[in-house]
Amino acid sequence: MKNFTSIDDIDNIESWIQEAREIKANPLKNKKLGKHKTLGLLFFNSSLRTRLSTQKAALNLGMHAIVMNVSGDAWGIEFGDGTIMNGNTAEHIKEAAAVVSQYCDVIAVRAFPTLIDKEKDESEQVLKSFVKYASIPIVNMESATGHPLQGFTDAITITENSPKKRPKVVLSWAPHVKSLPHAVGNSFVQAMQKMDVEFVITNPEGYNLNPEITKKTPIYHNQKEALKDADFVYTKNWSSYDDYGKILNTDPNWMITKEKIGNAKFMHCLPVRRNVVVEDAVLDSENSLVIQQANNRTFAAQLVLKKILENL
Amino acid sequence: MKNFTSIDDIDNIESWIQEAREIKANPLKNKKLGKHKTLGLLFFNSSLRTRLSTQKAALNLGMHAIVMNVSGDAWGIEFGDGTIMNGNTAEHIKEAAAVVSQYCDVIAVRAFPTLIDKEKDESEQVLKSFVKYASIPIVNMESATGHPLQGFTDAITITENSPKKRPKVVLSWAPHVKSLPHAVGNSFVQAMQKMDVEFVITNPEGYNLNPEITKKTPIYHNQKEALKDADFVYTKNWSSYDDYGKILNTDPNWMITKEKIGNAKFMHCLPVRRNVVVEDAVLDSENSLVIQQANNRTFAAQLVLKKILENL
Amino acid sequence: MKNFTSIDDIDNIESWIQEAREIKANPLKNKKLGKHKTLGLLFFNSSLRTRLSTQKAALNLGMHAIVMNVSGDAWGIEFGDGTIMNGNTAEHIKEAAAVVSQYCDVIAVRAFPTLIDKEKDESEQVLKSFVKYASIPIVNMESATGHPLQGFTDAITITENSPKKRPKVVLSWAPHVKSLPHAVGNSFVQAMQKMDVEFVITNPEGYNLNPEITKKTPIYHNQKEALKDADFVYTKNWSSYDDYGKILNTDPNWMITKEKIGNAKFMHCLPVRRNVVVEDAVLDSENSLVIQQANNRTFAAQLVLKKILENL
Repeated sequence: MKNFTSIDDIDNIESWIQEAREIKANPLKNKKLGKHKTLGLLFFNSSLRTRLSTQKAALNLGMHAIVMNVSGDAWGIEFGDGTIMNGNTAEHIKEAAAVVSQYCDVIAVRAFPTLIDKEKDESEQVLKSFVKYASIPIVNMESATGHPLQGFTDAITITENSPKKRPKVVLSWAPHVKSLPHAVGNSFVQAMQKMDVEFVITNPEGYNLNPEITKKTPIYHNQKEALKDADFVYTKNWSSYDDYGKILNTDPNWMITKEKIGNAKFMHCLPVRRNVVVEDAVLDSENSLVIQQANNRTFAAQLVLKKILENL
Repeated sequence: MKNFTSIDDIDNIESWIQEAREIKANPLKNKKLGKHKTLGLLFFNSSLRTRLSTQKAALNLGMHAIVMNVSGDAWGIEFGDGTIMNGNTAEHIKEAAAVVSQYCDVIAVRAFPTLIDKEKDESEQVLKSFVKYASIPIVNMESATGHPLQGFTDAITITENSPKKRPKVVLSWAPHVKSLPHAVGNSFVQAMQKMDVEFVITNPEGYNLNPEITKKTPIYHNQKEALKDADFVYTKNWSSYDDYGKILNTDPNWMITKEKIGNAKFMHCLPVRRNVVVEDAVLDSENSLVIQQANNRTFAAQLVLKKILENL
Repeated sequence: MKNFTSIDDIDNIESWIQEAREIKANPLKNKKLGKHKTLGLLFFNSSLRTRLSTQKAALNLGMHAIVMNVSGDAWGIEFGDGTIMNGNTAEHIKEAAAVVSQYCDVIAVRAFPTLIDKEKDESEQVLKSFVKYASIPIVNMESATGHPLQGFTDAITITENSPKKRPKVVLSWAPHVKSLPHAVGNSFVQAMQKMDVEFVITNPEGYNLNPEITKKTPIYHNQKEALKDADFVYTKNWSSYDDYGKILNTDPNWMITKEKIGNAKFMHCLPVRRNVVVEDAVLDSENSLVIQQANNRTFAAQLVLKKILENL
């Protein structure tokens, strides 16, 4: 594997899950693999789990990690082709990516969408520019349309907790006060489509995710119907995809409650707004897997880095 | 020792000072103790000495250190119980603390007071929430009401420089242009109360520290009287405790001068505003211990981390 | 060597270049030299290449690197002598430099000029204050008037690419939308004056660099004449030195084009504004050395740190 930019880069999700669980059981087993190798973590946006778990994964592999908040620490980066750079950006991605490639062995990048310009977001300009202009492997730490480290983590967590061979997994939209990206939802959908699970999505009208991603996955606008007999309820807000980036609905009846999900396991990528997305009673119950999910971020990242290091 | 949140966590200050001085004499002696252990340093506020000395202490013990400025790097954190999180905070401390606990082996936290809401500050919401919701040890890098790493450092420094068995130590308030916390004053008072020293406090009327902390320590409103025959003069500004967070007095006559302290050793936790809190002639004299104090921060932190690591 | 603050600290540039190229060929050769040593990188300003390459150099030598953005992470620093610190600065450089000296073994500092107060900038207050008040070696990561790590890097890159024993090197001013420092230009001039090259400068009237630095180096106001038969064209914008910090000229005819430089190698320290300073056709051609220059930053820094560590 050269780059890890999408769930599509996982050739065999079952074997990847198995390998990640082996790493979790023995996280320092490959601690010499990354000796004298450097991971550069470039953040265009805020991060807690990704920032810490990816560093931790690198440390477990014996790598050095260098972290940079691109906007605050360095220069505004230009992504346009042929631009006359007489505005606010001081450095072109062509130089930035090529230069960072010389100081690191792997680059991990986080760059959120605008949620205003759908075409620009879907072009994945930042991520794809790094892939194009860097000479070393690129890891996606959440891009405009995908968060594959999270989606893979979630597949691991479902496997660890599944009560049956083919569990029912429901992805449910929930309300939020801010306009949020589709990346986590998209990657979760893509991961579930690769898994041997019964998978459905539920969201209000106007909130269907990109049909090129959801494909044949059933979408219910009736949350109650979708949640019936669920083994796992994965909750996440996203803004409208059709009316791009807009908040069309804040109906608190879509909040996840203990009553709604019964004994199903609850999942969320975090950070989560309590009593807006999900009520305290769910998060504070034994059925919440959110902390375990966050823990698995380390081992998902570690497997990805391991595969990249083995291929250097 | 599980957590280090207060001077009260020091069971025997004399033996701790002895151990810290042994570390100072041989800082790399325990360089294998922290192998494959990670210290997470979380800053809600600015820091220079604490940021660098605590990292240095971790490195001396062979630990990895991961630094995060919570506000700038990650998400606004909610501390309220049962809050409907539809405002500016995006992540609850319940999740944040539990999650970070999985990427690190020890968490160190800095979170200053509001200086507006006394009750909230005295509840030590941030520090105590980390203690409550984290599953790993917590080190206080200055909280709303205490800075025990500094207080312990100061006890070490006094021991190193004491001209006699039972020196006279004076904590003197000094003027400042901003409203400052009581944390350093409080922890110094608590550390001195555990030491075999003659200890008095001097401050203007209206500036007495929390009486639950000062207890029976004599408080003089006449600075000259308090400073008489002092061996150590520890200077620090704090805002009013009674008229909480207010600046009631900026009288430059409270500034520490060479004339006032004579041959006494001068101490301050730094950063210090020259010629406001203390005149240049004192800071630039041989009697100033401020640089030595800052150096001892490393060994105070290293002993605390050592005790925590030994107990993991 | 104690400090590295200026190109003048290079005693023999030819032998330094030779040593840096040996490091480039075998970057981990001295990986034990920096064991248990810590490099503190203090940034008063933005940085990408310097931030990453200097950390990389430290890692290659086995050093720890601790990075701090002074303004965001710590306290406003006062540099004035005798100041009554009742304004925005909270800590004096006397304390800051002495304190950091106790946590690190080498300090690297970046502090840009005001471009408003020529006298202040030329006093190199920040850099010289660190040299004066720190007790450990200081490395200049770009100061008000010099960027010697860049100048030395450029000398390495020219040596690596020279088509002849005594190549012609032209430093050409180019237009820019912001008022920029003279540091890179100055250090490049000083490096070239130590090399066996034919060196000329070209810039519009009113843009001559400090004559105490350019000395007898020929300055052309006719760019075309200067570029004739050039082997290397080093381009950089700077604001006026005589009319200090002002932008007197934004004439796009000074932009570097493929037509102008023909087969000469193109150099720039980066970040560079495309199609303002230089056109895409030059940067994207095989004659551009900008990425190689950035790579050599690591080995320039590594040689400087190596010489300092050997002298500790």
